Amino acid sequence: MQTTGYAAYDADTPLAPFSFARRELRDNDVAIEVLYCGICHTDLHIAKNLWKDWFPTSYPTVPGHEIVGRVVEVGKDVTLHAVNDLVAVGTIIDSCQHCDQCRRNEEQMCRQGPTLTYGGADRIDRSMTYGGFSKHMVVRDNFVLKLPEGLDAARVAPLLCAGITVYSPLRLWNVGPGSRVGVVGIGGLGHLAVRFAAALGASVTVITRSAAKGEEAQALGADSVLISTAPDAMAAAASSFDVIIDTVPVGHDMSPYIDLLDVEGVLVIVGALDTMKGFSSLPLITGRRRITGSPSGGIAETQEMLDFCARKQILPDCEIIEIHEVNDAFDRLEHGDVRYRFVIDMASLAVE
Amino acid sequence: MQTTGYAAYDADTPLAPFSFARRELRDNDVAIEVLYCGICHTDLHIAKNLWKDWFPTSYPTVPGHEIVGRVVEVGKDVTLHAVNDLVAVGTIIDSCQHCDQCRRNEEQMCRQGPTLTYGGADRIDRSMTYGGFSKHMVVRDNFVLKLPEGLDAARVAPLLCAGITVYSPLRLWNVGPGSRVGVVGIGGLGHLAVRFAAALGASVTVITRSAAKGEEAQALGADSVLISTAPDAMAAAASSFDVIIDTVPVGHDMSPYIDLLDVEGVLVIVGALDTMKGFSSLPLITGRRRITGSPSGGIAETQEMLDFCARKQILPDCEIIEIHEVNDAFDRLEHGDVRYRFVIDMASLAVE
Repeated sequence: MQTTGYAAYDADTPLAPFSFARRELRDNDVAIEVLYCGICHTDLHIAKNLWKDWFPTSYPTVPGHEIVGRVVEVGKDVTLHAVNDLVAVGTIIDSCQHCDQCRRNEEQMCRQGPTLTYGGADRIDRSMTYGGFSKHMVVRDNFVLKLPEGLDAARVAPLLCAGITVYSPLRLWNVGPGSRVGVVGIGGLGHLAVRFAAALGASVTVITRSAAKGEEAQALGADSVLISTAPDAMAAAASSFDVIIDTVPVGHDMSPYIDLLDVEGVLVIVGALDTMKGFSSLPLITGRRRITGSPSGGIAETQEMLDFCARKQILPDCEIIEIHEVNDAFDRLEHGDVRYRFVIDMASLAVE
Repeated sequence: MQTTGYAAYDADTPLAPFSFARRELRDNDVAIEVLYCGICHTDLHIAKNLWKDWFPTSYPTVPGHEIVGRVVEVGKDVTLHAVNDLVAVGTIIDSCQHCDQCRRNEEQMCRQGPTLTYGGADRIDRSMTYGGFSKHMVVRDNFVLKLPEGLDAARVAPLLCAGITVYSPLRLWNVGPGSRVGVVGIGGLGHLAVRFAAALGASVTVITRSAAKGEEAQALGADSVLISTAPDAMAAAASSFDVIIDTVPVGHDMSPYIDLLDVEGVLVIVGALDTMKGFSSLPLITGRRRITGSPSGGIAETQEMLDFCARKQILPDCEIIEIHEVNDAFDRLEHGDVRYRFVIDMASLAVE
């Protein structure tokens, strides 16, 4: 199937239109017309080759792994999805399906490495995968999620990466009624972490450097705001959190957040693929506190999250843009100027 | 009760004899004649005021928190212990008994702070506590442990701090048959971690810089040795451990050990009360790996460990010394020259 999209051709020039072929449908493939695609920080990193040391970009690359679309064709063995279904695709589109991680529904940690939605290699023909900044996708059926009824399709897309990245650790660490959850940073990930934790019944505190974020945090459902630059407030909040979701996108000093953890509390790094600063082992030892991280989530858990969002009416705050605005959006993203996530309305992309 | 012991009078001079009074027995107190007392790195740190920034030493201080003794007198309400019982005392001798941590038998993390065996303040009369480098101890009954039959009393002492410090995280992180456990460093803590993990049914690997430790590790019950300075061996062992007990006593780079953890594996810091170096968040995020620490253990768990040691005949390797050799022992400890723990035979201390 011939299609079109927007690609980065190198690290330095703006994204530009790109015509390319999607593979002919295999028996278990689903062809999707992309309706909406979110813009993730990863898209910016890959387009500009900022992770070149450990995940160098192969150009041209078509970013986009927060995808909402409609099924337009299915392979002959597909039973999970049907033409016209509203569906979604996240950060991975295949995995080995046999290893211990796949068998426990954690395909994002597949031992052979999951197939990434873009910049990966198809497991059968080894062709490079292209993401959702495109008119059409072709994806193996069991990596296609169902869009539950009652969710505004235009705002769903960021759930597929930003959403599951914070939902998964909240579930893993048993957040529920009575849990005391801190969220560091209110951005794409952070604002969803606040909504999820609140919907799960937790008491939620936004931890931020900026006092101006107070009203914003409350509007998102946070119970309180802790200003991390206020030493007295930080000292008063020592040992008072069970789980802290740390969405800070660059390497930083974790010590102030470690001190906020209660006994056996967990600091979960989800934002920074980077070098973290050194820290004192004392609070880890005396209170069995924990530092961990979390990648996105498995396919079953991502579906669970979408269903949870439909029940609780949780959606990200999005700014809907057209595809020709994508480079401006990248610039604004780089400067933190979005509340909280861009979504591209792919109807703005003409198929030539 | 008048007694005698060895005290550090300041940070710079050798330990020397010290005569002092133990309190008259309260109704729930047990008086103990100390038979053996282990020497812990903490004793060295406190005697020399090396933790002055966060736990400054009050002189004179009587170190010693790995204590084996015989009951010589009990208060009128004591039912747990009787005169002539062989007993043991570890790093804490009281706690609030009411907080959430005490109620779940984790007195070492008591919200009010447990009463340390030495250098602490008695909860009733606020007098300073003196440790086991002394002829007699007076300890609240439910902080006195029972020495199970069949354990060589002369070698038990180091279990009370070194032992429980590594036993507790092995239990917390569910080490058992099938677990793949790494132990970094073979010293007082490390050699016991190897024995415990092996006795719990785990596959145990000693991780060490020194190839010469190979036979030593095997003699302790390790299944294999991994030389941390051999890049090929370390690379081949990537992602192959469930739990790594890190006994390195100073701040260090954790990255090589983090890379050895499997998905959701745990690095437990038990040796270094210090500043740890920075590290990449990548393996934490991609594999949900964890860094944590562990203090000693609660009273019930310490008793469980002693009983486990009696069943499995696990004892530390000790060098038994007399009390007048304590300063030499401190010097040797400072240079890592002991295999693996000093125990003072307190019969060598005359009561004047």
